[in-house]
This record gives sequence, C-alpha cells and structure tokens, in this order.
Amino acid sequence: MDARLRIERTLVEALSLAERPGAPPKLAEAMHYAVFPGGARIRPRLTMAVAAACGAEDSRAAAAAGAAIELLHCASLVHDDMPCFDDADMRRGKPSVHRAYGEPLALLTGDALIVLAFQALAMGAAKVPGRLAAMVAAVAGAVGVPRGIVAGQAWECEPAIDLASYQQAKTGALFAAATEAGAAAAGMMGAPWRALGDYLGEAYQVADDLKDAVSTPEELGKPVGQDAAHDRPNAVLQLGVAGAVARLRVLAEKAADSIPACPGQASLKALIELESRRLMPKELPAAAA
Amino acid sequence: MDARLRIERTLVEALSLAERPGAPPKLAEAMHYAVFPGGARIRPRLTMAVAAACGAEDSRAAAAAGAAIELLHCASLVHDDMPCFDDADMRRGKPSVHRAYGEPLALLTGDALIVLAFQALAMGAAKVPGRLAAMVAAVAGAVGVPRGIVAGQAWECEPAIDLASYQQAKTGALFAAATEAGAAAAGMMGAPWRALGDYLGEAYQVADDLKDAVSTPEELGKPVGQDAAHDRPNAVLQLGVAGAVARLRVLAEKAADSIPACPGQASLKALIELESRRLMPKELPAAAA
Repeated sequence: MDARLRIERTLVEALSLAERPGAPPKLAEAMHYAVFPGGARIRPRLTMAVAAACGAEDSRAAAAAGAAIELLHCASLVHDDMPCFDDADMRRGKPSVHRAYGEPLALLTGDALIVLAFQALAMGAAKVPGRLAAMVAAVAGAVGVPRGIVAGQAWECEPAIDLASYQQAKTGALFAAATEAGAAAAGMMGAPWRALGDYLGEAYQVADDLKDAVSTPEELGKPVGQDAAHDRPNAVLQLGVAGAVARLRVLAEKAADSIPACPGQASLKALIELESRRLMPKELPAAAA
Repeated sequence: MDARLRIERTLVEALSLAERPGAPPKLAEAMHYAVFPGGARIRPRLTMAVAAACGAEDSRAAAAAGAAIELLHCASLVHDDMPCFDDADMRRGKPSVHRAYGEPLALLTGDALIVLAFQALAMGAAKVPGRLAAMVAAVAGAVGVPRGIVAGQAWECEPAIDLASYQQAKTGALFAAATEAGAAAAGMMGAPWRALGDYLGEAYQVADDLKDAVSTPEELGKPVGQDAAHDRPNAVLQLGVAGAVARLRVLAEKAADSIPACPGQASLKALIELESRRLMPKELPAAAA
C-alpha cells in the first residue's frame, strides 16, 4: 500500500476510538476536524520512509509511529492557535478548532489527540512489543520535556529565551522524532537517525519562513507575518531572502549526507533530495542567485 | 520501600526530565508546582496495592504505572481549573497553576504532564517490556477517548449529556485504570480488575460530594459548591446526605467483594475495607444513621 494512503488509514483507525459508544460526539467531531484534511503529512511520510530504508518487515508499527507523530503535530497546532497563544482564527484554510468548536473543546481536543498518539503506538506495536518502549520514548521526547514542542512553546513564557533550544524544540523536535521513531519501529537504534530529522526540521522551518515572507494569507491558509508580530525568530528576518535560500540548500545537502548506513540508504537519499528540491521557492530565482 | 515513598520518588525522578539542560526553567517549576505537594496519592497507592496483590516481583513497573496515573490526574486538575472551564483560583490550598504561572504556561504544563506520564511508563517498564503495551493502553484509556477523563470533561460541551458516561469518565476512569494498570504492571490481565476501580472511583466521588456539602473552602483547599454552581451531577444533591452515605457503604462493600482471585487477595481486601472506613464522614453520624 502507498505510504500516504497507509498513513491516512492509520489516522482514521486511531480516530475511530473517539467514535465508540459512550464517547461525546462533539469531541470526536473536533478531533476529526483537527486532523482531516491534513497538510502534506511530511513527518509521518518521513517516519515510514526511514522505517522502509531500515528494512522494516512489517509496516504496521511504522505507520503507527508516523500517525502518532502526526497526531501530536495536529494537537500542537490546536493548542498553539488558542487565544492564550497565537489567537489564530484560521488554520489550513478553515477556522481554527477553538473558533469552530469553542475554547473548552479545543483544549480537550488537543489533550485527547496527545493521548491518542500513545494509544495508536500501543496498538501498532502489537506484533513487535519489544520495540514499543523505544517508540514511546522517541515520540514522547518530541512533544514533552526536556526538548519537545511543548518545551519549545514554553520558552516563549521565559523572561530570557535560549534561542537554540527554542528553535530546536519548536521546529526540530517532531522531525528528529519522525526519523528516530521510524528506525525504532524497524527495530533499529534511533539515535543515529536524529541528525537527519534535525536537518530536515530546520530545512522545513526555513522553507516555511520563506513562504511566510512571500505569500498571501489566502495562499497560506493562515495569517502571514505572525513571527514578526509575535517577535519570534524567523530565518528570513535574520538572513534575508537570499540568505535563507542559501541556508536551505546547505541543510538539504547535510540531511542527505547524514543518512546512516542501512539497506535502503541510496533510495532514501534520492527521496530526500527530491523533497528538498520541492522545498526551494520557485518564485525567487533572482533573489536566490 | 514504603509504597507512598516509592510513588513520591518515582514522581520526582519523572519530573527531573523537565530539569535537564535545554528545558525552559519556568515550565519545570510549574510542573513541579502542579504535582507537589500532592493530595493523598490515592490512585497510585491503589495501583501499587493491586500490583503487590497480583504478586509483582519487581515494583518498578507498578510504581511507574502509579506515577503515570498521578501525573495524568494532576494534568487534568491544571486544565480543569483554567478560565475556559472552572476558572478556579485555588487548588490544594494554594493558587491554581494558571493563577500562579499564567494561562499559557498552565496549558503547556498540563500537556507536558500528560506526555510525561507516558515517558514514565516507558522508563519504568524497561525490565518488563512485554507488559508495556497493556500498561500504556490502560493508562491512555483513563484519560483519552472514548471513555477517559478528557472525554468526560467534553460531555460538558455537549447539548445533551449522557449522564452515565459523563460520571464514569469523569470520576471512574482514573480509578479503573489504576487497578487495571497495576495488574498489567504485574503481568496479569487488567480487565478483571476494572470493577474494583469503578466501585472505588464512585466511592471517592461520593465521599468528595459529601465533603463539598459539609466543608468550608479553607478545610477543602478549594471553593465549595462548585457542582451546584456549574449544574453538575453530585450525589448529595441527588440523594441527600443520608442517601449519599448509604450509597458510599454499598460501594465500599461491592469494591471489597470484587477483588479477583490473586496471591494477595485477603490483604488487599483488608486494605480496601480500612480505606473505605476512612472515607466515611465522621461529622455526620446522625444524618447517616
């Protein structure tokens, strides 16, 4: 089965837990709204690609790890959009969850999606129980303390920000977990795979910063200029457009070169290079030259 | 080691993750504030008592399961106290987390504690990896969909409330998980242990409702009369004080009688009976007669 289709099916299966008898229907609806239709599902596709490159014999655990990371990503978007953070009205071209369902249900939707990520992992690892602890550790580390996305967001509440920790946690943590959990789902050590995730995480962040700088809200499906408005770090603000494009090129090369030796190393490298080319902004050849 | 001490030590160990280099200090402080000093740690003590009764040879997994359930309990208190729910100023005799640290950090503290619960499980099951999936499933089921505390809270956002599901999820879910996860940590089937948790969960809820009816805010460490104010079900409002005391007696008996056959059945039964007597309100002998 195609990886993208497999991810969507695994997400649907996980969310069906919210529709069982005794569950409140509006919560199930809000959870579904937060997860579908998704973005590019970049992180879970990365998880499955790494697991396949590691020679995973059964893709079920890898799909569960990918789905878990996507559920955590969606949960973080729901909570980040809430009034006490970005107070964002729109997300992925439609009203944010708290705008569509109210603040109480948005808070609960994020909570339930976080928990669902771990439920999905436990179900997905049924045939490879010995791998579950490493999968849970990789996925939980991406979102919790000390260096997950929640910790990253919490740096915004500190009087003095540790910029490197902030950026790594906010943008790199889920990517590092995507590669680490993919390897763990295939029964391999996850640690050697973190560098790939770190480089790709920063690459996607720089690409996002470039989009934020050159897009309209309609194209982006959410407000633009949020980093400047909230005084948050942004590669284009720091390096300029040409500098950001150059940084993106370096990161893409480092990512491709960081892939550990594994059965599918060559094909994973080709895939990473293809995806990296897609990240380059097409409308900026002059600025990038 | 004494079970209570073991639980505190396991909670301290888990929370030390939030203090590692690169983690935002205020988040670590707020998480610590939400967990210490604790309440009676009823749920994790129950988890450890069940694991011991099941003949658990190593208490590390049981302590981790108990700590995970306590962390989720604390997370739910932090989020429930927030302005979009109860807007509670006080909890356990001190300002609630959002009053002490602000709303953004309270939201993140709850999120991070939820994730920490699963990190604690993965670490605690290191020597018994084959039990981790059942432990995760029991613990996650207590807090997520379809019938965990988050689902219970979400019933308050529905136009028509399913009262049985609401009450079971809000008050019973963490107790059912406490017994189920204790059995799972000992390598036993968790399902036969759910009834004990369900009865005890309802018993503690009735005892809380009685306290709410006869206490001052100073004695309780939080506002009284919140159920009446928020139009939520409450055993004293439904049955009267004498009716609620009678219900508490029945639940305590049913709990003691529901303990599955296991090596420590007799001593667990004695412990449950002792705890049940402590739950009976001492100041109400006339009303209860």
